[in-house]
Parts: sequence; structure tokens; C-alpha cells
Amino acid sequence: MIKAGFKTLSAKSAAQLDGELMSTGAFSIDQLMELAGLAVAKAIYKQYPPSTGTPNKVLVLVGPGNNGGDGLVAARHLKTWGSYDPVLYYPKKTSNQLYSNLVKQLQDLQVGELQTLEEVKALLNNKGEVKLIIDSLFGFSFKPPIREPFKDLISFLSVNHDKIAPVVAVDIPSGWDVDQGPTDIDINASMLISLTAPKPCAARFVESGKDKVHYLGGRFINKEIAKKYDIEDIIDKYKNDDLIVKL
Amino acid sequence: MIKAGFKTLSAKSAAQLDGELMSTGAFSIDQLMELAGLAVAKAIYKQYPPSTGTPNKVLVLVGPGNNGGDGLVAARHLKTWGSYDPVLYYPKKTSNQLYSNLVKQLQDLQVGELQTLEEVKALLNNKGEVKLIIDSLFGFSFKPPIREPFKDLISFLSVNHDKIAPVVAVDIPSGWDVDQGPTDIDINASMLISLTAPKPCAARFVESGKDKVHYLGGRFINKEIAKKYDIEDIIDKYKNDDLIVKL
Repeated sequence: MIKAGFKTLSAKSAAQLDGELMSTGAFSIDQLMELAGLAVAKAIYKQYPPSTGTPNKVLVLVGPGNNGGDGLVAARHLKTWGSYDPVLYYPKKTSNQLYSNLVKQLQDLQVGELQTLEEVKALLNNKGEVKLIIDSLFGFSFKPPIREPFKDLISFLSVNHDKIAPVVAVDIPSGWDVDQGPTDIDINASMLISLTAPKPCAARFVESGKDKVHYLGGRFINKEIAKKYDIEDIIDKYKNDDLIVKL
Repeated sequence: MIKAGFKTLSAKSAAQLDGELMSTGAFSIDQLMELAGLAVAKAIYKQYPPSTGTPNKVLVLVGPGNNGGDGLVAARHLKTWGSYDPVLYYPKKTSNQLYSNLVKQLQDLQVGELQTLEEVKALLNNKGEVKLIIDSLFGFSFKPPIREPFKDLISFLSVNHDKIAPVVAVDIPSGWDVDQGPTDIDINASMLISLTAPKPCAARFVESGKDKVHYLGGRFINKEIAKKYDIEDIIDKYKNDDLIVKL
């Protein structure tokens, strides 16, 4: 296990905490995902404020699970604020009503969607067009192996990382092992937004480069739960009424 | 109809817009209420930042409908931030699961609840103890007459308004007619937080005194809906990634 300079939540504990919030905690997934996605959008606005003029194009890579849902919510807030222009790549859609609803909300905002990996690559190869990439592919419940088209996508981002826009990872840099960190495939994220609390791989992310930026978001757990999961220190880092904090 | 210095949404239009968001708009009530309640909490933090030391006691008056739900969500955020100490008065509970869940979330945060109007009056008579009162009793679907215990409660607040803490009204000053404004019973709010868009009575609120403060929150409608309901001007007032704006 990695020794972090901050308290972390293992994949197993994170799944347990999420389950607890949605059972005895009486939160709905709609609520939690709304707050998580809003925190992602807020952290992006703070770290990568939009340049003036044309709305900044943001490519949102959406995975099949809850991490993808957080990305969809973040895309909606960014679009609503008016200064970003998100476009989705969401190749493996979940049939669940919540996800269909999140997609419908984005369609109503005229958020576009790329249908093929070739379109994604072409867009990214168009130097300077995309200002930011949101990696909401896999979260803390990810288990290898990575299947297509995600493997090809992450490999492309990895190989081209010095030529393309910065990657902002939601909760986990996709492809990484939640507890152990990097595997043979690295999406090369510039920024990580840990949700609820950092997972062990967040420590490896921070150590992987001086310019790596790490935020915390998803401010919805109470002191008792924080104590139970030994993450009080990290929750205490939030200031005032902020929904996010730069760690 | 009142002529406002800003565009407003009549009771009928507000109900129609809400219905549209939750049908063709594909929003869940959980999502919308979470964002509305968060906006209320954010506006309170901005206008009445907590004094240091003991968390500021806030009395949250919760009505039987959605306006009450917004108050419950606001109370949770205020409590989670740590610098406010909300206490509820929620005499007519809705049996609906969403409301039971919102109450459970507050119980898990050790938010207390007053059981009788006598307790409410005693608390408010204890000069200086309560720093702020949130009026989330009635929203845009309110129709007179006001029933007990709300009538007695609002009368008490009205009569004692210069001796007690400021009242922050959520969307509508309770007791007011949504389209026409004041009736014979006035909760004497110091601050109004209009959700989605101001209702016609908001203009009367602003005109009713120089020190009346008016915020807008609930930033979730797209330009097409704003255009359809003729409230583009008001939606354009939001800045950057702010969830609220002082009007």
C-alpha cells in the first residue's frame, strides 16, 4: 500500500462508504452525483478558467458507470455557465434511467456527441481546438482489463499527451489501479479531482510530477462517517462554503 | 400585475416551467431540490457570513411542500460547512420518501428539531440566540388561506420582527400572494432568494424597503427555456461559475 501525505480511502472502503451513504445515509444517487459533478465543474473553473471569446471546447470522455455520470453532470454545469463548450464521447451507454436523463439534459443544452474513436482522435489532432479533456471513464470500482474502445483511447491519450490538451481525471486517472496506482497504461492526467476523499492512487499521482494538481470535491459526508472511515483530516481541509479545495 | 424592474415568472408560469424541467427536461426532483437548496445556503453564507466561535444558530421553518424541501437541503449544507447550527421546525411532514430521506440526512448530522410552536416562540424570545430565520414555509404554489400552526407562526414573526433575527425567505415571503405580493399577514423578510427566476411578488419585496436584499439562485435552466419563458435577462445576470447572484 502507498503511504500518502494525506488520508486515503481504499477501493473497498470507498465502495462501502458509497453504499452506506445511499442506504442508512438516505442519499439518492441523483443527489450525490449532482454534487460530485458540480464539484468537478467548479474545480475545472478554478484551475482552468475559461479564456474570453468563444466558449472553450472541452472533450468529456464518459465511461459506462458512475464515474461517467459525474462527468455528464460536470459537462452540464460547464455548459450552463456559458463559457465552456463540452462535447461528449460516450461509447458504452448505460440503459439506466438516470443516465438517459443526464444525456437528455445535455441534448437540451445542445451539447454534441462524437460517435467514433476516429472522430475523437481527429478532434484531438486538430491542435489547439480542444482546451481540456475530462477523463470520467473509470472510477474506484474499476477492475482490469480495460476493454475496447477505452484501451485504444487511453493509449492514444498516453502517447500524445505532450501534444494535446491537459487531462483532468475524475476521482481516478483511468487505467490506474485504485489502490496501487499506475499500470502499463497511463492517461497522463495533469489534474485529479478526488471525490469524497482521495483514493490511495492519488498519492502516486501527486508524487508523479511537480506540476500535478490535486483537488478534493464532493462535500457531503458528516463528521461521524468521516471518523468511521478515518478521513477527518481531509474533510477538515474545506474552507467556508467552498464545494472544492485544492490540496 | 406588478411592474418589476426585472423579468418575473407568474405562479402559473413557474408551475409550468417546473413541470417542463421534470418531464421533457428529464430532471429529477432530487437534482433540482439539491441545487435550489444549495443556492439558498450559498446566498445565506454570502449575505450573513457566520461569526467566528460557536456555530451560528439558524431556525429553519419548513413547510409541507417543495419550498420546505429546499429549506431542508439548505439546512444540510449549512450544517455540513460547520459554521452554522440549524434547528428545524417542521410541523406538517410529507410522507413522501424524498422528504423522509432529507430529514434522515439531517438527523445523521445531529440537526435538532423543535416539536411545538411554543418551543419556537421561546427560542426566538431568547434574544440573540437565533442569528437567522429561514422561511421555507410556502412557495409559488401556495394558495390562501394559511392554516395553523403556520398562521400563528407567521403572525408571531410579523409582530416581533424588530426584536428577532432577520428572516430569509426562500422564493416567496410566506403568506404573500405569489403574483400580487403582501396580504394582511407579512413575515417581514429581510432577504429574498428567488429560485429559477423572481416571481412577481419579488418586485414588491424589493420596493418595500431600502435595506431589502434580493438574490437569485437555482442556476439550471437552458437558454431555450429562458427564452420561452421570457426570463433571459435575469438568467444572464449570473457571473462566472457562481451558483447565486445578488440582484
